[in-house]
Amino acid sequence: MSAIEELITELARLPGIGRKTAQRLTFHLLQHPPEQAVRLASALIAVTERVRPCAECGNFTEDQPCAICTDPRRDPGVLCVVEEASAVAVVDRSTDFRGRYHVLGGRLSPLDGVGPESLRLDPLVRRVREGGVREVILATNPSMEGEVTATYVQQLLAGLGVRVTRLARGLPMGGDLEYVDGVTLAHALIARRDVS
Amino acid sequence: MSAIEELITELARLPGIGRKTAQRLTFHLLQHPPEQAVRLASALIAVTERVRPCAECGNFTEDQPCAICTDPRRDPGVLCVVEEASAVAVVDRSTDFRGRYHVLGGRLSPLDGVGPESLRLDPLVRRVREGGVREVILATNPSMEGEVTATYVQQLLAGLGVRVTRLARGLPMGGDLEYVDGVTLAHALIARRDVS
Repeated sequence: MSAIEELITELARLPGIGRKTAQRLTFHLLQHPPEQAVRLASALIAVTERVRPCAECGNFTEDQPCAICTDPRRDPGVLCVVEEASAVAVVDRSTDFRGRYHVLGGRLSPLDGVGPESLRLDPLVRRVREGGVREVILATNPSMEGEVTATYVQQLLAGLGVRVTRLARGLPMGGDLEYVDGVTLAHALIARRDVS
Repeated sequence: MSAIEELITELARLPGIGRKTAQRLTFHLLQHPPEQAVRLASALIAVTERVRPCAECGNFTEDQPCAICTDPRRDPGVLCVVEEASAVAVVDRSTDFRGRYHVLGGRLSPLDGVGPESLRLDPLVRRVREGGVREVILATNPSMEGEVTATYVQQLLAGLGVRVTRLARGLPMGGDLEYVDGVTLAHALIARRDVS
């Protein structure tokens, strides 16, 4: 395979990048000074060499433990449990949560062969058992598998004397009632609140 | 800057890839075996090291001259002039053109400081002067700048005893007359053909 073909093939392996986009990106890189491609290649290598999951929370980091786990201004008494490390930045950016995180590294999905042993559940139980954790917030995705995972974690932590909460479900902001799916609407009705 | 930030920044430099997509791609690579990122990095380096413009036609190639210029089954008497090397594959894939190519490396654009001296025009004139070329097909883009470039090349080749043609303009296939822009429609009317 030619070098051009090889680069197109590798780019097209990335999610959301089809062959046409991969071709466009390859020609873009060819038509610009090689420094751009070299910098991208170096960044890829640096990430594979330097970034590892935090031994404590599972978030991606270059330091052990990560900056969040060692930040003295953050409350070690509240853990936010997410499926993937990518969710840490999302929660941290858009909320004022200032506790710590615990990345499960996936969601329960028996059909895909993902059972409890594939997730970072033992480290979560250990963190709670070691004491100092008052609350575990389950922030798994609002999908079927995320719900199942949250329920599993909830049962796992029952009896450990820790408060377990879940993100509220209801109508998303900015939407139109007509376009909200039925399950969400049903949840929103059940979880309705007094306003007077 | 952290290695993760660096990779996101480099990916976001690519055309059509915003910061959010760059983040998604970075986490995708982090969540998969490092071999994928390493292969992509190697492909990037290989392209910058091995791919050069063909000294003859300007197409990107690992061999000098390129496979098209040395293919004995292709007619050296017909040159298809395109703006960018990326157009070579497009024309070659979708038409039955079996002549050779000439890549200009851009289009005339005085506002962007791109004058005739920035394009591979001298090599084009040289190829025509050396003889053996019967026809030059101007396949610049159907844009204002592409039109200007085609007209310039046409005048440059006048008097060299070579036939100069341009791709036909008219209605694109599969469209609806209502959605065709006015300029295209006007061209299509002027270039109307007898069908009887």
